[in-house]
Amino acid sequence: MSQLSTINIGICGLGTVGQGVWKHLESARASLESKLGVKLHLHRASVRDLKKKRAVRVPATRLTTDPLAVATDPAVHIVCELIGGTTLAREVTLAALRLGKTVVSANKALLCAHGPEIFAAARAHGGHFFFEASVAGGIPIIKALREGLVANRFGLIYGILNGTCNYILTRMEREGLGYPAILADAKRLGYAEADESLDVEGWDTAHKASILAYLAHGAWVPTRAMLVEGIAAITQADLHFAREHGYAIKLLAVITRDFANGELFVRVHPTLLPLTKVLANVNDVQNGISVNGDVVGETVYIGRGAGQDATSSAVISDIVDAVLLLRRGNAPLPVPVRQHCPLAPLERVRGRYYLRLDVKDEPGVLAKIATATAHARVSIASMVQRPSARRGAATLILTTHESNEKAIRATVARLTRLACVLEKPLLLRIGDFAG
Amino acid sequence: MSQLSTINIGICGLGTVGQGVWKHLESARASLESKLGVKLHLHRASVRDLKKKRAVRVPATRLTTDPLAVATDPAVHIVCELIGGTTLAREVTLAALRLGKTVVSANKALLCAHGPEIFAAARAHGGHFFFEASVAGGIPIIKALREGLVANRFGLIYGILNGTCNYILTRMEREGLGYPAILADAKRLGYAEADESLDVEGWDTAHKASILAYLAHGAWVPTRAMLVEGIAAITQADLHFAREHGYAIKLLAVITRDFANGELFVRVHPTLLPLTKVLANVNDVQNGISVNGDVVGETVYIGRGAGQDATSSAVISDIVDAVLLLRRGNAPLPVPVRQHCPLAPLERVRGRYYLRLDVKDEPGVLAKIATATAHARVSIASMVQRPSARRGAATLILTTHESNEKAIRATVARLTRLACVLEKPLLLRIGDFAG
Repeated sequence: MSQLSTINIGICGLGTVGQGVWKHLESARASLESKLGVKLHLHRASVRDLKKKRAVRVPATRLTTDPLAVATDPAVHIVCELIGGTTLAREVTLAALRLGKTVVSANKALLCAHGPEIFAAARAHGGHFFFEASVAGGIPIIKALREGLVANRFGLIYGILNGTCNYILTRMEREGLGYPAILADAKRLGYAEADESLDVEGWDTAHKASILAYLAHGAWVPTRAMLVEGIAAITQADLHFAREHGYAIKLLAVITRDFANGELFVRVHPTLLPLTKVLANVNDVQNGISVNGDVVGETVYIGRGAGQDATSSAVISDIVDAVLLLRRGNAPLPVPVRQHCPLAPLERVRGRYYLRLDVKDEPGVLAKIATATAHARVSIASMVQRPSARRGAATLILTTHESNEKAIRATVARLTRLACVLEKPLLLRIGDFAG
Repeated sequence: MSQLSTINIGICGLGTVGQGVWKHLESARASLESKLGVKLHLHRASVRDLKKKRAVRVPATRLTTDPLAVATDPAVHIVCELIGGTTLAREVTLAALRLGKTVVSANKALLCAHGPEIFAAARAHGGHFFFEASVAGGIPIIKALREGLVANRFGLIYGILNGTCNYILTRMEREGLGYPAILADAKRLGYAEADESLDVEGWDTAHKASILAYLAHGAWVPTRAMLVEGIAAITQADLHFAREHGYAIKLLAVITRDFANGELFVRVHPTLLPLTKVLANVNDVQNGISVNGDVVGETVYIGRGAGQDATSSAVISDIVDAVLLLRRGNAPLPVPVRQHCPLAPLERVRGRYYLRLDVKDEPGVLAKIATATAHARVSIASMVQRPSARRGAATLILTTHESNEKAIRATVARLTRLACVLEKPLLLRIGDFAG
């Protein structure tokens, strides 16, 4: 196909990201065309409403309401799927791939839910699927993992992958306000969706973790096989304790691989991260990823994880890779063959823990709690008492020595059953990673 | 050439990096071969001394003392030039490129001195030259700039690119010791070369800055056209002042481009970097680069900048790209066409400044200094006096409001001529970059 002198690009979905791609592709076009030696033509775009006003000027003749018409247009070489969701986006993606086209996508939910089907369709019909924008916006982390760090095996990857959660936690810490107040403000400012659950409950981070785990280990870990916890239960008491002891609280995706037995584990949870770690100082809507390779050691990547411009930067980088593929057969390095990659059982997912409990303020309580944790074979490293907002109650904050997910869950269950414990304890992980 | 079933790799120079590449390529070989669908064969290596003991086992039949024999061996597809220096390394590189081979290099000095000649030779004979390992070791910054951030123009790139300087400055700050003591210790520990001048005077950083500027702007800026200053004059007084005022001192490469007039400027100097910047907290031998793109905003990359393993990781990533090129015609995105890229005159290189002066401790000195700076049209923002080690003297530390390189040099010249100023003032830049 190296005789192609013009590459036609179709964009399915001209929302925030779609308009950003259109805008930045137009302004970078001359420079990209001179590097690539080919004309880039924004051939067609699909929208939901033809009459809606948009920030970018798109001639009416190039608009349609039918994304499948864009995806299957014989003139279109590269299809950008920027619709979002997993239904219509899946149809559009598969339709284009089955025609051997190259698809560029920013859709982490789609990839996470239908990754194997999408890559199989690409392989079967000679098409390709690019997804740099699906994780960490404009940070070229997909390319780094797949190409730049190709010499490495990855024992530990952890990262802040959701800007909304990082923004909320940063403001809670900085301003001393509670989660509900900051969340409401974040919604008002457009930093959180009207339905915030996908972000704050950790599912968006889990989708991205699934993609990183696939790239690093060649195995698709469904979100149901992960440990996924959100940030809604975090209070000022937790943030204060963390800061006093040299930690920031960050919602992290943590992907660990034990090379001795091959076991993989993927988890998403609020984490007490030592302030000495670079990522503990990555604030507001920024994302950051720490990648620990067995050859290179730790490398860290930081940048805007979402938003029109950062996402457009990644989509355009994929479009350029797709053009190189069409012009010169520049296929990306294949994602690793699916390996035998067992998931680690909970007793081999190890770490230190933080527990916050509201308890009755009466004699004998500490003994009962210490006995319950000892029964679950969890060893307490520190215990401090704080005033509770509840009348006749006290707040206890415990940290543990190294333990594991199975033992700590048993501990939480035992503690929850104690009459002196007034509600389910809050469990956080302490992220003193070796990496 | 897609019928190649084995790729033969030749390594010129089996020193620290060469042995690392051999070792890690052997251990990652099965995984790389399965991804690439081709056998990788370490065909031949050149050494200076055949009898020397090495940490990696290389069969004697595959060793030679003639690097040109490796570079021109008809069986060798990919030549890794790991000799260092700019004489023999240049010969070897050009010999291989003239035969249309692909060369992988970690040699920043060679690229900086002979970049145009090397790329011309590659173009003329259909070969390719890869150089990920030449800047920031294992951090895939070359790939990020060339591919991942291809949608962007780069108004500002700055980074810590020399691990030796960062190590010395970190230890001076942490331990309160002087530059000579820490340098001596760094030499003893092998973190600094016996001849440290290339590192501590900023030339190694300047070589790397030249490569980054080329990638970002398509123009080769020779080191003689840069501002290059080293770290040897920095004392505890400077580090204390910086820390008290919320700064760390880092040796930075700073590459700025003004898109209004196209002017480029490249400089290397110790910089007071606000502690709120991620790179201010990148310590010890770590490297870090902040890349400010007009689309993506700021992205930051951190990792080990040198050493056997980090460098090997980058060399192997280039080898994999070179294999993709040989197998599928996967040429990397061409480096931008050389643009009309004027160098900015000194009066348009702007910033705030830090000046430390030893002065006679007598009446009227402050007035003389204030008059001299005012004459050069530099406005003083703060002035503090500190005890001097010199008898009858005082140390003055000034910071300025925004000024420019031309005015501040005139200021330093004027101050140096004053009888009350006891030696040439130390000038540092304050790096409160907008990025």
